[in-house]
Amino acid sequence: MAEAPYELIYWHVIPGRGEHIRLCFVEAGVPYSDTAFLDGGMDTMYGYISDQNTGDELNPPPFAPPILKHGDVVISQTSNILMYLGPKLGLAATQPGDIWRINALALTALDGFSNEVHNCHHPIAIDLYYEQQKEESLRRSKDWVKNRLPKFLGYFERVLTGKASGEGPWLYGGVLTWADLVLFQTLDGTNYAFSKAMAAARKSSKYDRVFQLYEAVKARPRIAEYLASERRQKFSEYGVYRHYEELDVEADVEPKE
Amino acid sequence: MAEAPYELIYWHVIPGRGEHIRLCFVEAGVPYSDTAFLDGGMDTMYGYISDQNTGDELNPPPFAPPILKHGDVVISQTSNILMYLGPKLGLAATQPGDIWRINALALTALDGFSNEVHNCHHPIAIDLYYEQQKEESLRRSKDWVKNRLPKFLGYFERVLTGKASGEGPWLYGGVLTWADLVLFQTLDGTNYAFSKAMAAARKSSKYDRVFQLYEAVKARPRIAEYLASERRQKFSEYGVYRHYEELDVEADVEPKE
Repeated sequence: MAEAPYELIYWHVIPGRGEHIRLCFVEAGVPYSDTAFLDGGMDTMYGYISDQNTGDELNPPPFAPPILKHGDVVISQTSNILMYLGPKLGLAATQPGDIWRINALALTALDGFSNEVHNCHHPIAIDLYYEQQKEESLRRSKDWVKNRLPKFLGYFERVLTGKASGEGPWLYGGVLTWADLVLFQTLDGTNYAFSKAMAAARKSSKYDRVFQLYEAVKARPRIAEYLASERRQKFSEYGVYRHYEELDVEADVEPKE
Repeated sequence: MAEAPYELIYWHVIPGRGEHIRLCFVEAGVPYSDTAFLDGGMDTMYGYISDQNTGDELNPPPFAPPILKHGDVVISQTSNILMYLGPKLGLAATQPGDIWRINALALTALDGFSNEVHNCHHPIAIDLYYEQQKEESLRRSKDWVKNRLPKFLGYFERVLTGKASGEGPWLYGGVLTWADLVLFQTLDGTNYAFSKAMAAARKSSKYDRVFQLYEAVKARPRIAEYLASERRQKFSEYGVYRHYEELDVEADVEPKE
């Protein structure tokens, strides 16, 4: 089982939620296959999420990608895949209970922060185009940048001041874990979507530890090489993080204290 | 550690996300304390989520409740707590890899299905009242009931037809797991929020296995006793699942095939 190859099944073109998983493999220097770059990769993915797929003897069908296949384990849900991989890839602390503490941080970045950014351009329905919900997206984005962005940045800043974060730039236990990589990718996507508000947040010096973590991940040798390569897919008008000029609102109002 | 008491820290009055955790303790017959029913319980909770809390030596501060304290483990995020508890409470299958398969199902019910129901009454901002986003809520609810509700119900119906679900009414491995309890609670909340659409879904017979699972959980002796007791807090105009007459829309349009 330890010898089984890691296979990532995800959309091509967009970095999306799959990118959180890619960064873990990259940082660990562990090879993996990726349908985004394989001939017929999208057919493989559509097979997994087809209405006709009922899974196999051991694995229920996945609801949506990303999906990880590792030997006879086929699992979905980003946070779940990350938690499965983290300890195997050496991206976890080592005390009993640590994986639960790290998973809580990763979930806060993923299912909180990151999903809320996504919902800024799709507040009404993910089945509709952005253009069909522009007005609502603007209203949501203004509120989000004002109230939720400082809440998430402030939370992770607080985590980084806490004793459990240990020495150095990382969120937990003084070591780089999968939660750091998730937060990096979430910040990177938010920089793209809300460039003005993020520039203001950085300038304010209120979240210096958060942006230090961002830079520290970016400077990891394998990550830096990957980010500069063609394997790093670009953010665009598709996917989780999108830049629409009209939604890139200024954080011109002081957040709630 | 096995002897340490389980302490649930959550809002009072609303069942909310904490209820998924309560149902696990109830089904397992394992005692736990619950700030919702303790004098000073809300002060305890506010202490955990205070802007001043930086956690302790081992535990980062939680972002939001529910929070579980078990010995020196203090963790947040509902799906994380459930995955921590599931095997300890005997609510998991037993093959290697099963907890990841079960967690994927629980996450699909929680971070997919359940969160999307919540967002139907708060599409624009969770900092605003429903009354400040009524129009957008109606637009979202109509789409959700038409396109997303059948998608989620259809998905879980498909899981239940799959071989990995095993014999009997349960989602995975022929045994009751925490994912079944999560799906039950999500269905129960959705029944409350979207009573007309759920009645139509039940009547359609397209999702018979899903509703059989719902009834099977409801009929578990400890669950049945709990649901009939005063400990079971009622859904209301607060919390994750809410009933607003104007949002309780008919599923009068055939969903996308």
